[in-house]
Amino acid sequence: MFNSFGNILKVTTFGESHGTAIGGVIDGFPAGMEVNFEAIQNELDRRKPGQSKIVTQRKEPDTVEFLSGIFEGTTTGASIGFIIKNTNQKSKDYNHNTNVYRPSHADYTYDKKYGIRDHRGGGRTSARETANWVVAGALAKQLINHININAFTSSVGDIFINKPYQDLDFTKTESNIVRCPDTASADKMIEKINQIRKAGDTIGGTITCVAQNMPVGLGEPIFNKLHAELGKAMLSINAVKGFEFGSGFCGAKMQGSEHNDIFNEDGSTQSNLSGGIQGGISNGMDVYFRVAFKPVATIMKNQQTINSEGDLTEIMGKGRHDPCVVPRAVPVVEALAALVLADFWLLNKTRKI
Amino acid sequence: MFNSFGNILKVTTFGESHGTAIGGVIDGFPAGMEVNFEAIQNELDRRKPGQSKIVTQRKEPDTVEFLSGIFEGTTTGASIGFIIKNTNQKSKDYNHNTNVYRPSHADYTYDKKYGIRDHRGGGRTSARETANWVVAGALAKQLINHININAFTSSVGDIFINKPYQDLDFTKTESNIVRCPDTASADKMIEKINQIRKAGDTIGGTITCVAQNMPVGLGEPIFNKLHAELGKAMLSINAVKGFEFGSGFCGAKMQGSEHNDIFNEDGSTQSNLSGGIQGGISNGMDVYFRVAFKPVATIMKNQQTINSEGDLTEIMGKGRHDPCVVPRAVPVVEALAALVLADFWLLNKTRKI
Amino acid sequence: MFNSFGNILKVTTFGESHGTAIGGVIDGFPAGMEVNFEAIQNELDRRKPGQSKIVTQRKEPDTVEFLSGIFEGTTTGASIGFIIKNTNQKSKDYNHNTNVYRPSHADYTYDKKYGIRDHRGGGRTSARETANWVVAGALAKQLINHININAFTSSVGDIFINKPYQDLDFTKTESNIVRCPDTASADKMIEKINQIRKAGDTIGGTITCVAQNMPVGLGEPIFNKLHAELGKAMLSINAVKGFEFGSGFCGAKMQGSEHNDIFNEDGSTQSNLSGGIQGGISNGMDVYFRVAFKPVATIMKNQQTINSEGDLTEIMGKGRHDPCVVPRAVPVVEALAALVLADFWLLNKTRKI
Amino acid sequence: MFNSFGNILKVTTFGESHGTAIGGVIDGFPAGMEVNFEAIQNELDRRKPGQSKIVTQRKEPDTVEFLSGIFEGTTTGASIGFIIKNTNQKSKDYNHNTNVYRPSHADYTYDKKYGIRDHRGGGRTSARETANWVVAGALAKQLINHININAFTSSVGDIFINKPYQDLDFTKTESNIVRCPDTASADKMIEKINQIRKAGDTIGGTITCVAQNMPVGLGEPIFNKLHAELGKAMLSINAVKGFEFGSGFCGAKMQGSEHNDIFNEDGSTQSNLSGGIQGGISNGMDVYFRVAFKPVATIMKNQQTINSEGDLTEIMGKGRHDPCVVPRAVPVVEALAALVLADFWLLNKTRKI
Repeated sequence: MFNSFGNILKVTTFGESHGTAIGGVIDGFPAGMEVNFEAIQNELDRRKPGQSKIVTQRKEPDTVEFLSGIFEGTTTGASIGFIIKNTNQKSKDYNHNTNVYRPSHADYTYDKKYGIRDHRGGGRTSARETANWVVAGALAKQLINHININAFTSSVGDIFINKPYQDLDFTKTESNIVRCPDTASADKMIEKINQIRKAGDTIGGTITCVAQNMPVGLGEPIFNKLHAELGKAMLSINAVKGFEFGSGFCGAKMQGSEHNDIFNEDGSTQSNLSGGIQGGISNGMDVYFRVAFKPVATIMKNQQTINSEGDLTEIMGKGRHDPCVVPRAVPVVEALAALVLADFWLLNKTRKI
Repeated sequence: MFNSFGNILKVTTFGESHGTAIGGVIDGFPAGMEVNFEAIQNELDRRKPGQSKIVTQRKEPDTVEFLSGIFEGTTTGASIGFIIKNTNQKSKDYNHNTNVYRPSHADYTYDKKYGIRDHRGGGRTSARETANWVVAGALAKQLINHININAFTSSVGDIFINKPYQDLDFTKTESNIVRCPDTASADKMIEKINQIRKAGDTIGGTITCVAQNMPVGLGEPIFNKLHAELGKAMLSINAVKGFEFGSGFCGAKMQGSEHNDIFNEDGSTQSNLSGGIQGGISNGMDVYFRVAFKPVATIMKNQQTINSEGDLTEIMGKGRHDPCVVPRAVPVVEALAALVLADFWLLNKTRKI
Repeated sequence: MFNSFGNILKVTTFGESHGTAIGGVIDGFPAGMEVNFEAIQNELDRRKPGQSKIVTQRKEPDTVEFLSGIFEGTTTGASIGFIIKNTNQKSKDYNHNTNVYRPSHADYTYDKKYGIRDHRGGGRTSARETANWVVAGALAKQLINHININAFTSSVGDIFINKPYQDLDFTKTESNIVRCPDTASADKMIEKINQIRKAGDTIGGTITCVAQNMPVGLGEPIFNKLHAELGKAMLSINAVKGFEFGSGFCGAKMQGSEHNDIFNEDGSTQSNLSGGIQGGISNGMDVYFRVAFKPVATIMKNQQTINSEGDLTEIMGKGRHDPCVVPRAVPVVEALAALVLADFWLLNKTRKI
Repeated sequence: MFNSFGNILKVTTFGESHGTAIGGVIDGFPAGMEVNFEAIQNELDRRKPGQSKIVTQRKEPDTVEFLSGIFEGTTTGASIGFIIKNTNQKSKDYNHNTNVYRPSHADYTYDKKYGIRDHRGGGRTSARETANWVVAGALAKQLINHININAFTSSVGDIFINKPYQDLDFTKTESNIVRCPDTASADKMIEKINQIRKAGDTIGGTITCVAQNMPVGLGEPIFNKLHAELGKAMLSINAVKGFEFGSGFCGAKMQGSEHNDIFNEDGSTQSNLSGGIQGGISNGMDVYFRVAFKPVATIMKNQQTINSEGDLTEIMGKGRHDPCVVPRAVPVVEALAALVLADFWLLNKTRKI
């Protein structure tokens, strides 16, 4: 209810930014899958801090240790426990925040809700948690490796890729540090982020994700619609403010006669404004969606704020923070998408005799 | 996992459009609340077909019968069973669809997923299901009546209210048939829908919802963030394509220095781009979000499609359908918001010793 | 958490003894099963009041109405809603109990827990609820009709069948009104119950249940062991005080060298003190267990008790009650066993790639 | 569904006997409790191997490391991750078992269910898992420290304490190595176990558990009856074959007139055959129950068995095993009882407005 995600394939996580370790338990993973550990570490490396000049300069190796559920390289059906040790916590960077509520962070709400807060590096609110999700998602990707999941940066601030995703070459996403498969846009985005970073500010952006080679039938039609679970997953990522799939908010301006996806004889559709999902169930077309990220709340500028006594004070970001969260969030979006799809793929084995 | 929603306060539903009845079970509702039955029926009336000229002209009284869990007008803590009888199923209007897959409906995906489909009036895929949610939501509203939840039509096609919600008078929402509290916009929206209806077409729109007088502390910070559950709930509504809260997709274009909500001494914030939620937990400011609805897929125009044998054929909408789903979806959005908030309100009683 | 049972195949129920109807929602039932409605009604008839002289003489037809999830006789994968109307509530028989706490009933605990109680006929505490379970279990039986589930009365008071179940002919269980396949014991049990009934008293007993033709692999080994879920299910039945499987409490007196089940070459075992379950997982041998029922608390004798004000008073059972709950509980035990096995059977489809 | 236990207070575990570590995540634990770490370690010490001459002579320190959810000694409301490192795995003792199915163990069922098995020391089937439960239960005990939970060995083989629990002094339970508060019986039990151990055999036994100073109102009356959850919990412990509460199996021989618990004016009852639970809800009287453990399956004697190829072979126990599991299971029973009670205690905060 709190720190778990998924139905059959369920991930339960723990860990604070500056504790000993973060980690989790992956439950319901089927037995018999040979694990590609290198692929998992590769996903973690895509998310890790310090990987380029446009992300936080913290250095954390983010090495996952699996503690159970895998025997001689193969999943056993038992729960998969794992930890990622926290190796580089410059706590002194955060000490000044002990008592002060950072604007648009969760310090205030945690304090009010729980009456206590691990303030070190954001504690449980830190996006460090998403490393756990990347581990679980990397395993899920291997389970449903017949589905291709590709996320990419589709905008930074007001710089958008002005092409449909069908015109993009996803193999280029990793060719640049902003993870935008459109090279021209990528250059502008990187420049933008650099400029923002130098100004001590931060900037928002969007990520688009496309799942291709989808089977028909994933998703449950009432309260576990495929897009509703994808939406919930994406809205769980730190800094996310919106989710749309298929035609999304644009679809709300359209008429039925232009929005309907006309069938071809083979059951595919001529257009795909439905985003590959009808009635909550995948129809075999590409599933695609877009996720909005607000600018990171920690800025290197002076801001007025209050402390836990309710006194006005000032705060100025220290430490090493991301000027734009989007490049590092790309593997997180993929990971959660993989978890949702793998869960529904397993669930679907039980829906018909 | 399939037809249930909520954690502590859980709603489980059933029912097809043209079966004997729809209904559900509301579990986890606390004992001791005196039920206002009139208020429940009033919510159902806001959703019911045939209420105005811009919605479907089907006539269904949608009277809820409570079968359990309420004794002498007060909730007992036992599960609350209820049914809404289906009284007006013109099945002949739908018989021509038996074998034909309506474009952008769920006929195809249901058939492929389950191998069988109750085709009468959309069966389980019908938005008639949302009447169940309205019943449960109306009870939830009474449970958390210290919170004010107001949804309204914020756009129809390209007609938007051009005002922040703070400038609107929510008492006017029910004063017009499109449920837009801005009377001038309402007139344009109604005219637009009428015009679309006459053309045999349909149109999309958006609903904005605002929860005021929020307590601090609702929501759980990792996988049950308040906005993630709200998003999942809204994405469960038929025809929804997107969800955003607070600054939403606009926030993705902004810089941290303009997006951060600066605290006042009392813990309130000067701006509220956070949408009343920080780290997944309510901060006491208004919670507000926007939901995008695509145009209804059933249009009164000829469309090419296929049947279950994969033969090309044509289909033309018959029956009595909504030209725009938004006016009737307003109480549905409120109902689901109330369920989410009531669930978190109950859950929050367990989070601190 | 409250009124639901099962994981994939989940039953959620509602209803009070003297409300309009009881009923429930069966969720997760796979699509494509042709329903034998007669078989379901037959199970309800085995449980219904008034079926013989040794059970309560209330007359209730207990006819189930399915409201959804079944189309043209076949399950669709949608949730199956059903109700059983309450037709024969002699409320006046119960009116004298309004304010009085019946000894060893749940009146007192309900009042203290919820602050309110539907006192009519026991309200939600009535074993009438088990009719809901019989409906769901009858469907589950059809889903896993390759497994044979047979429960029977194995003792009434101190009258026990003195034979291993292997020596019994289960086809004789329904040949007598006490549902004991050993005819000689059955006669004694019936006589015992008659004598108890005439004395205005009640008596306890045990039911043994055997599942034969079991597949290997049902059950999940840590917190969802097959026997743990069976135990929980049986302990949910009104009046149950104990559960044992395989060697049970006798096993606690034995030594390992006599208790171990030695394997045959085909994986079957020479003895079956394990009760067909090892490490929580079925091993293909018969699963068998025994359930203890206390005597019904309502007796036709004067008892001292208190009322809700804490005043001492007297109570004497009126109405029409069972002198021994065991004969009518036999189909309930089978129903719950079927639900547990069907749930694990579905779940098992997801546990191996 | 697999490795999780509890509703609000949920424990999810992982770990194999001979992996790097076992551990788990405790979710839903309320914020604000000061943790007594010494008390937790003390519970682990009660369970640990090598503590006396009548238990396995393996030496494992079983030190728990908390990784999250506790800040400066106080719970924060965040999930509590923990691990217990495996320090003493004499894998060579187990290597001879790689391919051989030990009688009445779970080797065969795991292999058949999952197609793969971590055979080292029993892997996931090892009772080492119960150390995880003891950690979680020790925290739960502190949360509900107003309730006194005492388990003790009530029989070993055919040696029973012949006294009601009311005549026992629970402070003596830890005064002897078999954990029996009746010193005379304890001596006989210890002698019995010693004799069995020398014979290379094993023996079963029972544990009785009593929860005193119970609040009224814990438990949910339909599918989460207090005794049903206690039963499920106990049946999850390795080697358990039966569970009874209150009058238990004896109650099945009794008449209503002798079984009913007559109320006193204060709501307490003169007798307590109900075991402190009526209608699934605690009534404030002592909750007590009894758990049956079979003899440990690993014996130091030659037994016929089969290997994974289905060939007949022989096996003889090696390694260091418990001749009787009961003394070390006493803290495990208490831990699970505490988890069930704490979960219901939290849940009960939501059941009445």
